[in-house]
Amino acid sequence: MERGLFITFEGIDGCGKSTHARILAEQLESRGHEVVLVRDPGTVPIAEKIRLILLDPANGAMAPACETLLYEAARAQLADEVIRPALARGAIVISDRFFDSTTAYQGAGRELDPSFVAAANGLGSLGLAPDRTILLDVDVEEASGRVDDVPDRMELEGRRFRSAVRDGYFELARRDLDRVRVIDATLPEAEVSARVLAALDGLGLDLEGARP
Amino acid sequence: MERGLFITFEGIDGCGKSTHARILAEQLESRGHEVVLVRDPGTVPIAEKIRLILLDPANGAMAPACETLLYEAARAQLADEVIRPALARGAIVISDRFFDSTTAYQGAGRELDPSFVAAANGLGSLGLAPDRTILLDVDVEEASGRVDDVPDRMELEGRRFRSAVRDGYFELARRDLDRVRVIDATLPEAEVSARVLAALDGLGLDLEGARP
Repeated sequence: MERGLFITFEGIDGCGKSTHARILAEQLESRGHEVVLVRDPGTVPIAEKIRLILLDPANGAMAPACETLLYEAARAQLADEVIRPALARGAIVISDRFFDSTTAYQGAGRELDPSFVAAANGLGSLGLAPDRTILLDVDVEEASGRVDDVPDRMELEGRRFRSAVRDGYFELARRDLDRVRVIDATLPEAEVSARVLAALDGLGLDLEGARP
Repeated sequence: MERGLFITFEGIDGCGKSTHARILAEQLESRGHEVVLVRDPGTVPIAEKIRLILLDPANGAMAPACETLLYEAARAQLADEVIRPALARGAIVISDRFFDSTTAYQGAGRELDPSFVAAANGLGSLGLAPDRTILLDVDVEEASGRVDDVPDRMELEGRRFRSAVRDGYFELARRDLDRVRVIDATLPEAEVSARVLAALDGLGLDLEGARP
């Protein structure tokens, strides 16, 4: 293929994104594809430094606009250093979060003006957009049981915030049913993994023989 | 007054911005005004942490879009925590740099798309704009002699970059002659200071008795 594929995983903390991004990467690599697995914010040193500021519970005074622009700064670095070059050489990029997280967390969760969030996403993504987005859905209680023992600044947000974020995700899935596929992440891991593969239909990927 | 005044100092590194921002603050305080002196990026803890990432020479791989969005993130935090509340209570805010720095450094210096820079400035400033901007002009050679012995990431940029930034400043002054006043910063300090005060005409400030 002349241009690679960009696949993102989304959902609230504890939904299993990182696990299923890794499983999918292994599946596609086993089929001979070049896969670049990243997390946003992060992956490259400058973006990881920005991530530390974002997740440090000491930064409780952070304004929602600052928070949004920090996510976008990290995203721009990741897009410039890794995602864009990988797509240009035809690789499959799998990202744990991308701009939909900002729409859900800072838009729906923080209640920032949707036009602010949309403009910020346009800048931070450098114009890149996922070809397919897997939204792993779990309810807020279920997800709470899966997060780290030492919660970061975002995980410290309460039930109401996480519930608004989940609603934000549903809203963006409704607006773009072809790109965003919702999968029930409370199913057994192998079943979720099979549904993730099935959700990559229409992208021109040869998935025969890939085993969940 | 119902709303305060927002005055910014701009120019290339080594032009004397910090010194003249401080002198003006003292002048206005001696006239009984509440003055809030800030620097952008910085002033508040979260913005100072972002500043450290921006100026660390170890971050040489930073993409111009990331750099721009980091400046905007720091600016949004400063605007939200300090500038907006200060203006709302009628104070005079004096800032060492604001969004014109991004237009000059990231737009003219890094040659980022002007529409990217304008959109980013719109987000990071939270809609705030200076009532008056003092552009302290020195030539690139003169300024080089005034910067720190241990240069930061931006100061490490070469003569050509600084020259493009200076041209960028002239260009924005030309576009907004009423707001942006250019002062020759190679004059003696007291003369520059007198011209800064004189450049605050038309803002409704009572400056009688203020001594440069």
